[in-house]
Amino acid sequence: EWTLKSLVEKNIHEALNTQEYPVSTGAKKVSCTSVASSAKMATCPAGMTVTGCACGFACGFWDVKNETTCHCLCPVDCTTALCCQLA
Amino acid sequence: EWTLKSLVEKNIHEALNTQEYPVSTGAKKVSCTSVASSAKMATCPAGMTVTGCACGFACGFWDVKNETTCHCLCPVDCTTALCCQLA
Amino acid sequence: EWTLKSLVEKNIHEALNTQEYPVSTGAKKVSCTSVASSAKMATCPAGMTVTGCACGFACGFWDVKNETTCHCLCPVDCTTALCCQLA
Repeated sequence: EWTLKSLVEKNIHEALNTQEYPVSTGAKKVSCTSVASSAKMATCPAGMTVTGCACGFACGFWDVKNETTCHCLCPVDCTTALCCQLA
Repeated sequence: EWTLKSLVEKNIHEALNTQEYPVSTGAKKVSCTSVASSAKMATCPAGMTVTGCACGFACGFWDVKNETTCHCLCPVDCTTALCCQLA
Repeated sequence: EWTLKSLVEKNIHEALNTQEYPVSTGAKKVSCTSVASSAKMATCPAGMTVTGCACGFACGFWDVKNETTCHCLCPVDCTTALCCQLA
């Protein structure tokens, strides 16, 4: 038997679960993973962004292409991209 | 002529668009950009945070000042700051 | 004396402040801090994620353990982890 309060709550619940209000149902966190390669470049999985690169023993210099690829600027044979997203 | 459903929806719409509930109407993403400089420091644009630094060929050592500036701790003539934000 | 509108508003207010709809009451930002150690590893505080590592003068190579620990892959005596979270 519907009380006014439960009817209101039901409507609120339905309204908040529509596309229009993508209210997050859980706090998001910065989530990262490493991608290693045996070349001068390493690319993040789709949807992830490079936040840091590692480039072989004596090479601290790199740049980032399209926010997704670490590019080491020294002659190295190993590159690691640190890739992050909100999850 | 108001139905309960439309009254609830109207009120939710108003409630969610007030200062009190700045519901994000679109998923946010980690968005990053690189800032290069020909000195020992590189600073992110306002609103962005350093997540990684690159410091010249044989220099892997750096620290970060005020979350916004990469500071290379070796004698280098090139520094890159990787700057990120939610966008 | 309850009007329908105030009942609806009250219920919306309560619904939005429950665990189920953790509506963020303020824009979140990427917030980072550095953790330095005089060993080959540096670990982020709980709740924070590694986004970049620094590994001594001539060492640009590192990997990340469990998203929280920078591990330098050269014989170094100083490591810095750049740790980020949403805050």
